Amino acid sequence: MTGQMSFAECWAALARIGREPVGGGYHRFAWTPTDRSLRSWFRDQAARRDLSLEADRNGNLWAWWGDPGAGAVVTGSHLDSVPGGGAFDGPLGVVSSFYAIDEMRRRGVTPSRPIAVVDFADEEGARFGVACMGSRLMTGILAPDRARALRDADGTSLGDAMTAAGVDAAAIGRDDQALDRIGTFVELHVEQGRSLVDLGAAVGVASAIWPHGRWRCSFTGEPNHAGTTRLGDRRDPMLPFAAAVLAAREFAESNDAVATIGKVVVDPGAVNGIASRVDAWLDTRAPDDATVQTVLSGVTDAAERAADRHGVTVEVVQESYTPEVAFADDLRDRVSRLLDAAPQLPTGAGHDAGILSAFVPSTMLFVRNPTGISHSPAEHAEIDDCLAGVTALATVLTDLSIR
Amino acid sequence: MTGQMSFAECWAALARIGREPVGGGYHRFAWTPTDRSLRSWFRDQAARRDLSLEADRNGNLWAWWGDPGAGAVVTGSHLDSVPGGGAFDGPLGVVSSFYAIDEMRRRGVTPSRPIAVVDFADEEGARFGVACMGSRLMTGILAPDRARALRDADGTSLGDAMTAAGVDAAAIGRDDQALDRIGTFVELHVEQGRSLVDLGAAVGVASAIWPHGRWRCSFTGEPNHAGTTRLGDRRDPMLPFAAAVLAAREFAESNDAVATIGKVVVDPGAVNGIASRVDAWLDTRAPDDATVQTVLSGVTDAAERAADRHGVTVEVVQESYTPEVAFADDLRDRVSRLLDAAPQLPTGAGHDAGILSAFVPSTMLFVRNPTGISHSPAEHAEIDDCLAGVTALATVLTDLSIR
Repeated sequence: MTGQMSFAECWAALARIGREPVGGGYHRFAWTPTDRSLRSWFRDQAARRDLSLEADRNGNLWAWWGDPGAGAVVTGSHLDSVPGGGAFDGPLGVVSSFYAIDEMRRRGVTPSRPIAVVDFADEEGARFGVACMGSRLMTGILAPDRARALRDADGTSLGDAMTAAGVDAAAIGRDDQALDRIGTFVELHVEQGRSLVDLGAAVGVASAIWPHGRWRCSFTGEPNHAGTTRLGDRRDPMLPFAAAVLAAREFAESNDAVATIGKVVVDPGAVNGIASRVDAWLDTRAPDDATVQTVLSGVTDAAERAADRHGVTVEVVQESYTPEVAFADDLRDRVSRLLDAAPQLPTGAGHDAGILSAFVPSTMLFVRNPTGISHSPAEHAEIDDCLAGVTALATVLTDLSIR
Repeated sequence: MTGQMSFAECWAALARIGREPVGGGYHRFAWTPTDRSLRSWFRDQAARRDLSLEADRNGNLWAWWGDPGAGAVVTGSHLDSVPGGGAFDGPLGVVSSFYAIDEMRRRGVTPSRPIAVVDFADEEGARFGVACMGSRLMTGILAPDRARALRDADGTSLGDAMTAAGVDAAAIGRDDQALDRIGTFVELHVEQGRSLVDLGAAVGVASAIWPHGRWRCSFTGEPNHAGTTRLGDRRDPMLPFAAAVLAAREFAESNDAVATIGKVVVDPGAVNGIASRVDAWLDTRAPDDATVQTVLSGVTDAAERAADRHGVTVEVVQESYTPEVAFADDLRDRVSRLLDAAPQLPTGAGHDAGILSAFVPSTMLFVRNPTGISHSPAEHAEIDDCLAGVTALATVLTDLSIR
């Protein structure tokens, strides 16, 4: 029993879904028609392998090898993307999971525990602003009422989007049944930096995930005519916003952190009008929580001082915060040993495995990315490294499932 | 023969078209369904007054009192708006023109020249980025090929948008027939500053329009992951963009000019991704051309220096430029005298009258705006001042049409 098509063929078929017509990036937002196609692809892959399919209350999909039950070894990742994202972030983990099961079957492994491949819903948070939605809801980290009320750029609520996609939005929230079945979670992911390139290794193991917060910074001024309004009469929110952009870089630099403003919405957005409001999203990560707070405070202070000077009000609202994740030492050391002393490395990127690690033993494998670029069409992994990832994942799943 | 409804009733009916559901602003973009409703309203107003209706090759609408012909006295303005704009900028001039004709008829005026009310298409340029499209095309200032190729935010070309609205886009361009008929052009407009408030006058006369340019500043970097990309590896276009925003204010301030960035488009716009590209539109105006160039050079230099530091490329492209308009002394003095020595004032706002002034004698009346705010829902004129504007316009049109 195999997937009937090779890894490369399977990958090519998936790569057609949600690809942007220009630039080669992907636009795979949660609960859209593209997302529906990705989920159909997942169902098809499960069916090809006689895995039983299950959708949990939060819209995550599960493909079971063996009867669903306690102590399961769960692997997988996500299929959604950021706007203009790459092909690998998420899908590499899902495809590799299916092919790792094929490899285990080829090796004649008979697991003594159930194994599942999971596709977590809405990991990137690109549409509603909160990352790892599927795992946050399942673990109860995110309150269902708050989740349902989140809105996308068109004003559609997450509740309405899920309902339209056939998920009962009234039933979302902490799912002990789903959570309790997970004995161990293993997520394979393309590396989003160049550490494995520098180390000359195809596969590595995650040591920790930096703490990570997202804040919406809203600058509210007064719309007016760009030609007739004297500078002294202006309350232009674009000016303190620009100061905040520069402050974010400055405070990140001086604190060995990273800070990014990559999404900006200007209202009303007229060429010949002073803006009434600028919303900017600040993404900050650092090796520890205190440093993230230091950067946030610096940016907030700078924004408020600039806003005061220009008669603008500023509001900074935390949209998400994920504390540092240190993956369990014993599990990651065990995985590293299984993989011929694969290197261990920290990452600044959030993952469902990071969310789950507070609830169940979790570990991550990284596959080498030649440029280190991610969230971009340039994101890449060579096919040989992908196959090495599949082999490594099969080895880890075998070890965990026959214990 | 009257308009059958009072000015206030007519105004209230027009005010329902294109109003945004939240905030009370207007969204009246050219060649949209809302624009079609506005043009229907114009046709209805013309029909109510037995004015003959004509659409010229560039989509401008003309309502004629008397046979269309040379030496006509033409009045009017535009009906489109910026996004989130006010009710008065444009429509006040069109409504006042119809009511000025009613007033002339009540006074028993028998014009010896034809009179026309014109609704110029796409004055704000909010959709395609070039202001005064209808008058620029009619006068040949803007090449038809360049106009047709302009695209809106959704990628629709002006040519396609006009075609979809029933205008033959192949036939746009300089229209000598329409232009040669204009003997004098008079545009009434809400004031977009507080000069008339300070002067205690309901109505004023335009002396000059500041030169005005718009430039698209495009910053191109490299999209990447916001959590895993080291600061030193980034090519983040948001940073030089922010520097340009602050430079625009600084150079405007030190040169007694105004400069505004009110429209920004960030691609791909991910919360957790470094942007690949930021497009920002710079609007700069000053009392003279040299000062506009000084500000532009300062902003461009600052943008280029910041872009160099961050490995980003920057391109600054002029989208429109309107040199200083000094309205003809004799005409504006005559109008001022007719209106009991109405004050004369310059403005930073562009108008179709400014475009036409290079081709035909043109003049403008301004109506007092209590706050001076424009391009905003707060834009306003009291009804008594609006009626004073109608009376003044009727007086000016009478004087010009019986000569």
